[in-house]
Amino acid sequence: MKIVLVGANGTIGKKVHELLFAEGHEIVKVGKTSGDFQVDIADRESVRRLYAKIGAFDAVANASGEVAFAPFEKLGAAEWGLSLGSKLMGQVHLVQEALPYIREKGSFTLISGIVGDDPIFSGVAAAAVNRAIEGFVIAAANELPKGLRINVVSPTLLVESLKEFGPFFPGYTPVEGTQVAQAYKKSIFGNRTGQKYTLYP
Amino acid sequence: MKIVLVGANGTIGKKVHELLFAEGHEIVKVGKTSGDFQVDIADRESVRRLYAKIGAFDAVANASGEVAFAPFEKLGAAEWGLSLGSKLMGQVHLVQEALPYIREKGSFTLISGIVGDDPIFSGVAAAAVNRAIEGFVIAAANELPKGLRINVVSPTLLVESLKEFGPFFPGYTPVEGTQVAQAYKKSIFGNRTGQKYTLYP
Repeated sequence: MKIVLVGANGTIGKKVHELLFAEGHEIVKVGKTSGDFQVDIADRESVRRLYAKIGAFDAVANASGEVAFAPFEKLGAAEWGLSLGSKLMGQVHLVQEALPYIREKGSFTLISGIVGDDPIFSGVAAAAVNRAIEGFVIAAANELPKGLRINVVSPTLLVESLKEFGPFFPGYTPVEGTQVAQAYKKSIFGNRTGQKYTLYP
Repeated sequence: MKIVLVGANGTIGKKVHELLFAEGHEIVKVGKTSGDFQVDIADRESVRRLYAKIGAFDAVANASGEVAFAPFEKLGAAEWGLSLGSKLMGQVHLVQEALPYIREKGSFTLISGIVGDDPIFSGVAAAAVNRAIEGFVIAAANELPKGLRINVVSPTLLVESLKEFGPFFPGYTPVEGTQVAQAYKKSIFGNRTGQKYTLYP
């Protein structure tokens, strides 16, 4: 299977790559500055050009997208714009612009996160964006053409990110990146659509 | 209690006004083109000017906000921009810009809708936006100053809107506008925060 992996060089992306590459799949690595192809997911035209270069494929798995973390009273237009433009609309672009290229019965796997269900300090924009992605997925699942499927993976804090992000997630039990990669595998190779796969141990 | 009611002239707004005005509350009616004051909620500056004119108050209840309905493949940048700018960011503006004016222990009541939980045709942007508002509310509830509360009301199709919107909601049991108004009352006068009050009979 030919899988476009966006955010391939990130903490989760690397684990997804490891798992699926080991199983013999063709992985097209996409990053903002690294990988086989580069893309700015917030820019619809950039996503369009990406797919035109890649051509036909079977799945898009995304492990990228930025949100701003700031105390509620400091969450201004710039922070909202970044969050909605990147993690939300970036993923919308990745789905909508893929339609001419993705093969029948292909799939999309997006990413949200625990902050939409169990908020942390400074996570108001993240909570809004994560839930928006989930709403997008459950509704888009019913309207996708060509028998395409779409799911979303919602991880908690990763063991691999404990040093960097642990202090922002007090009392949250972290999950191994390899477990998150399994959720991507479930989404890509399973038969379900419109699902949210949570990793909240 | 002095309540700023945004969307006061809409189907839900009118019912909220009826209920709370009858109980002796001071209702500041706000609309896009009608009411005591006018506002374009999508425009942060317009919201800022609105509150500066109104001065101190105890609660904001919103029953306004636009989303675009379009088949998934026709949901372009304009439709996403309208939906995120109005119903999502419009409500964010209504909360964030109120902070200097709203009194201690005041409250915000926002609106989402059933399409985020039980999608309809052409409702992908609506589903994303409704869920985003809910994520915003559960996270902002933990960060609001001055003992402020925030909740969201999620109605299904209204009896009063059956003629106009009924065909888009096949098999959905409608709810009376007066019941939706009761949910606003619960949010404004209850003691809970970060709650989603659904009206899905």
